[in-house]
Amino acid sequence: MSETPDSAVRTYIQNHRAAFLDDLAEWLRIPSVSAQPDHAGDVRRSAEWLAAQLKETGFPTAEVLETAGAPAVFAEWPSDDPQAPTVLVYGHHDVQPAAREDGWHTDPFEPVVQGNRLHARGAADDKGQVFFHTLGVRAHLAATGRTAPAVHLKLLVEGEEESGSPHFRQLIEAHKERIAADAVIVSDTGMWSEDTPTVCTGMRGLAECEIELHGPDQDIHSGSFGGAVPNPATEVARLVAALHDEHARVAIPGFYEGIVELTDAERALFAELPFDEERWLRTAKSHGAHGEAGYTTLERIWARPTAEVNGIGGGYQGAGSKTIIPSSALVKLSFRLVAGQDPDRLEEAVRAWVADTVPAGIRHTVTFSPGTRPCLTPLDHPALKSVARAMGRAFEQPILFTREGGSGPAADLQDVLAAPVLFLGISVPSDGWHAPNEKVEIDLLLKGVETTAYLWGDLAQTWRDAHAH
Amino acid sequence: MSETPDSAVRTYIQNHRAAFLDDLAEWLRIPSVSAQPDHAGDVRRSAEWLAAQLKETGFPTAEVLETAGAPAVFAEWPSDDPQAPTVLVYGHHDVQPAAREDGWHTDPFEPVVQGNRLHARGAADDKGQVFFHTLGVRAHLAATGRTAPAVHLKLLVEGEEESGSPHFRQLIEAHKERIAADAVIVSDTGMWSEDTPTVCTGMRGLAECEIELHGPDQDIHSGSFGGAVPNPATEVARLVAALHDEHARVAIPGFYEGIVELTDAERALFAELPFDEERWLRTAKSHGAHGEAGYTTLERIWARPTAEVNGIGGGYQGAGSKTIIPSSALVKLSFRLVAGQDPDRLEEAVRAWVADTVPAGIRHTVTFSPGTRPCLTPLDHPALKSVARAMGRAFEQPILFTREGGSGPAADLQDVLAAPVLFLGISVPSDGWHAPNEKVEIDLLLKGVETTAYLWGDLAQTWRDAHAH
Repeated sequence: MSETPDSAVRTYIQNHRAAFLDDLAEWLRIPSVSAQPDHAGDVRRSAEWLAAQLKETGFPTAEVLETAGAPAVFAEWPSDDPQAPTVLVYGHHDVQPAAREDGWHTDPFEPVVQGNRLHARGAADDKGQVFFHTLGVRAHLAATGRTAPAVHLKLLVEGEEESGSPHFRQLIEAHKERIAADAVIVSDTGMWSEDTPTVCTGMRGLAECEIELHGPDQDIHSGSFGGAVPNPATEVARLVAALHDEHARVAIPGFYEGIVELTDAERALFAELPFDEERWLRTAKSHGAHGEAGYTTLERIWARPTAEVNGIGGGYQGAGSKTIIPSSALVKLSFRLVAGQDPDRLEEAVRAWVADTVPAGIRHTVTFSPGTRPCLTPLDHPALKSVARAMGRAFEQPILFTREGGSGPAADLQDVLAAPVLFLGISVPSDGWHAPNEKVEIDLLLKGVETTAYLWGDLAQTWRDAHAH
Repeated sequence: MSETPDSAVRTYIQNHRAAFLDDLAEWLRIPSVSAQPDHAGDVRRSAEWLAAQLKETGFPTAEVLETAGAPAVFAEWPSDDPQAPTVLVYGHHDVQPAAREDGWHTDPFEPVVQGNRLHARGAADDKGQVFFHTLGVRAHLAATGRTAPAVHLKLLVEGEEESGSPHFRQLIEAHKERIAADAVIVSDTGMWSEDTPTVCTGMRGLAECEIELHGPDQDIHSGSFGGAVPNPATEVARLVAALHDEHARVAIPGFYEGIVELTDAERALFAELPFDEERWLRTAKSHGAHGEAGYTTLERIWARPTAEVNGIGGGYQGAGSKTIIPSSALVKLSFRLVAGQDPDRLEEAVRAWVADTVPAGIRHTVTFSPGTRPCLTPLDHPALKSVARAMGRAFEQPILFTREGGSGPAADLQDVLAAPVLFLGISVPSDGWHAPNEKVEIDLLLKGVETTAYLWGDLAQTWRDAHAH
């Protein structure tokens, strides 16, 4: 299956390393902050820059795709083998806000190389990880002597991921035929660590709601009325307290119905990861582990659904005291979902549970935002094996498996394209996504390049093998 | 016991009604809002105005008493009978904030008479109720032909009640000898209704605290960490949910220890009041009654201790959603206490309960503000009977008994002076304390005048009778 000689790939990458980093730095200088309206022009400039760069890379098609919000970039490079599978790479070119005064040691939009580290906003999330695909496909061609990739290669790089991808679903539905693929490669995740390269096999889904409870029509005096009317702040607390049972399982009826349980094989693979709970707690800035009985911390964050309070509020929260029974109180909940769960079904379950739980004398409203479905690639999926194999060649060591506790637009691609989603990310936890002094490890970035240089040939072969049966 | 002929009192009051209302209006024009620093000058002006007015009324002593905050007024008129008891009247001359744009139909500080109603901020709470003592003592003298009151009469009118009386305890401790009294008459409460005149026999005490729970050292991502670390917003909710048992009784160990239970006699008297729960719920702007099992609504608000959430907060409360586990969450609780309870003992109980309830991995802080003790005058106290008798003559109907659910500085007077506290208030629930368009019913105000015109003679007689035994 080694169509590509590894040494040729490595030589090619070393020869182009400097130019690759220079080009990436140029892109990182564009402050494409999608959340800040005054950077809208920069987000567009970032899209245009990338489209031009992809043309230069060799993609016959590379263009800016408009949305109702910030523009995306689409590129396509058909294989010279018409029977080859089609792969869509997903990433994003917008970045989180960043300002020197947030604690950056250097200007977040003036990339700085320090040893093996390239510091800049977007270095890891996600410009660096989109960009390794450019040198990767060229290394693939150079080392194999091809003039076109072994797969039909497509790239879709959105510009609103850091703003919650508000137009992504619309975008992919509008261009469904054009972006159609046999597999999706998402390069917007990370690995376990520098020493332990991993492939992520799924992300949790997400459903978010706000529950507002209304008691008295206005704040009323807690002396005159206290003890004799329902208090919406007390009731919102009772609702939250009823959210979990004594085993820290979510107590909403039907919550766990139909979920895909962790297999023993996957639990065993998770257990192979060098997990240090004390260290993880430091990363979590937390002072204790707590979660569903019968599961490890990794299983809890990757493979078990959750209900978390993101915010709670009602009544007087300022300095000192105010002796009122508040008129209303609210709680914002987010639910992380695993395969087999569905945001719409969850919404129904939550609405029924709230209606059953809130006592007489309290009105309630429940508002859900659009949800994100979970996605999961089974460990025995041939394309997943291809990714792990290509990564194994680049890293020269066995690849383990993780999942992501978070949620992303990958699920939309899975749904709209009806294609398996695979994750290829080389970022490590210390890269500081969304934080000051974001960086990417340059050697890992080049491992990303190398992995894709092997991946397209491997995937094409896997495809041929599968269709030969 | 009718030293004072009722008709003489009524004639005197009718003859002085116009001047009395004019004077009151002049006082109401001074916006003595203690909570707003830019009205500090007005609060002082209000004190000076009152001291001058009390001199004019005939008090040999009437002066402004300084505190570390806003000034109070003290006045004293010794009886011509050196054996007479000493009575201290308490009220306050500061008012709640008020602005036309809050929903006032007229300028809150430009008194307007509409039929039987005098509208202005402070008309009922509390300038009107302090002021009826001026015409009252003059009617007492005029109708009895005395030159000095039948009791040693003292007035203490504070200027910070609407700001929580922060210096009141200091004030009365500093002037303990000077304000010493055999009984305290508090004129800062209300009656059941215009048709059902009542005397209040007690107020609940108050203890207030803020409990803050600390989880992660900063907000953390609910996708990356959700389900595996304790969430302080969830835990603050669980704490609040644990505050009451399924009978809506406060579940803090020791909470009910030593409380003075309602007697059957007082429950029977409460039950005589024409209580309309539907109507009460409308006043409470609430959509259901809810409280401790085994007690009526009136018993719950007057005679049972409570724990209420005044505010709860943590994490993200803005529009939309934010997928975090918040770093901290807080709840502000207020406890209403009844006779036999004590804010200091409660504080200990709450601290122990919080420490026992909050789980590992969550740090907590508990902060109490200075508490207010409950006060209660037994129904068979001779001075209480005097007040009820004087009111009965003024209103020409039997007087029933209530309590106040709220809390006030009366408890400090009870503690520092070691004297029984009696409540003489003529305000009715529709007067709109702290609300826009506050008013007082003029005929009730004059009943207040009339009551005090009878009261001093009655109390002096009661005192003589008690000491004759």
